[in-house]
Amino acid sequence: MNQSNPMPGLLHDDHVLHRISEELAAKFDGVFSPEMVDRYVFESYTALARTARIKTYLTSITRHFALDRLNALAHSQGIRPSGVPEVLFVCVQNAGRSQMAAGLLRLHASDRINVRSAGSLPAEHLNDNVVASMKELGIDLRQEFPKPLTDDVVRAADVVITMGCGDTCPIYPGKRYEDWHIEDPADLPLSEVGRVRDELDGRIKRLVGELL
Amino acid sequence: MNQSNPMPGLLHDDHVLHRISEELAAKFDGVFSPEMVDRYVFESYTALARTARIKTYLTSITRHFALDRLNALAHSQGIRPSGVPEVLFVCVQNAGRSQMAAGLLRLHASDRINVRSAGSLPAEHLNDNVVASMKELGIDLRQEFPKPLTDDVVRAADVVITMGCGDTCPIYPGKRYEDWHIEDPADLPLSEVGRVRDELDGRIKRLVGELL
Repeated sequence: MNQSNPMPGLLHDDHVLHRISEELAAKFDGVFSPEMVDRYVFESYTALARTARIKTYLTSITRHFALDRLNALAHSQGIRPSGVPEVLFVCVQNAGRSQMAAGLLRLHASDRINVRSAGSLPAEHLNDNVVASMKELGIDLRQEFPKPLTDDVVRAADVVITMGCGDTCPIYPGKRYEDWHIEDPADLPLSEVGRVRDELDGRIKRLVGELL
Repeated sequence: MNQSNPMPGLLHDDHVLHRISEELAAKFDGVFSPEMVDRYVFESYTALARTARIKTYLTSITRHFALDRLNALAHSQGIRPSGVPEVLFVCVQNAGRSQMAAGLLRLHASDRINVRSAGSLPAEHLNDNVVASMKELGIDLRQEFPKPLTDDVVRAADVVITMGCGDTCPIYPGKRYEDWHIEDPADLPLSEVGRVRDELDGRIKRLVGELL
């Protein structure tokens, strides 16, 4: 049998993840138990590690993802309501459309709306032309990453907007739910991605007007 | 904007999931908090719903998956040790090789070894020829389903065996870890799948001999 050694990098990650877990447990003291926060951190890491191609920033991405999920959960349970409308964009890969939509909503609504995005089958990384196209508007998506759709973020959302993910998106009763028909920018040239972006931009502006 | 109604089926699922959550919370009373069991049930459901094509048995599959993950977690924390070696098989789709390996190990070791399988990118369903090929040995895989790799099952494993998932499998220190070079049965005709199965069978028998 082909015996291999454990990858040394993961020894290091385990240590970092425990530190993140302790930090977030303190943040959610009295809200969630330390054991639950710990599970959120370690399962978020594994969920991202399954699909992420570049592992370099995986622990800081994990911290960001786990923190956002815990905030979503606290909000959905009415423990720490955000006080602003919460919007979730979902597409298949969370590499193009849902990332653009989230970036545009942040641009137009700033902190008056809380926005998240996720994918039913997250890609390894964001689409390069999507990142370039958003940069033309001054929106920096280089720190964003494809995230799997989780129960907590769906429950936290007041508005769920799906784009091309068919029936793989679980929809909860009582939500405002929309399915937008937006062309998939994957494999489109930069100029065409700009056209998709501008179409999305019009919809996002209307959504912001309706929510605020 | 294209306004749709929530899918009625999910109202029903939500109700069933709450019942599953209560049942499992009672099973793990004094081990895990009801809130944590609840998260395990609902996140397991969403994780499976992301990729499963057939949604008919999703709640009973969810119960099975969440229960197995909670058992894995309790074992890994030394709270409820299983008392037998725990083996985890991982491939990309959890639709072929890792399912065959798990089925063969169950055949040869029965309850003397605890076995799990998972995928880094779970498929929509098991490979038909894999199910047929295993049936030739009297092993019924029709109740099995592709599951995403989670942190809890990796931590519970004494032996992790990967097949073709490259560096997407997180490996924890202190585990026995092997990478098996086994041909991917996807798209192979039934006779060739039988050859792959028999090669796996030889390795599984050796593994059982070593572990028991």
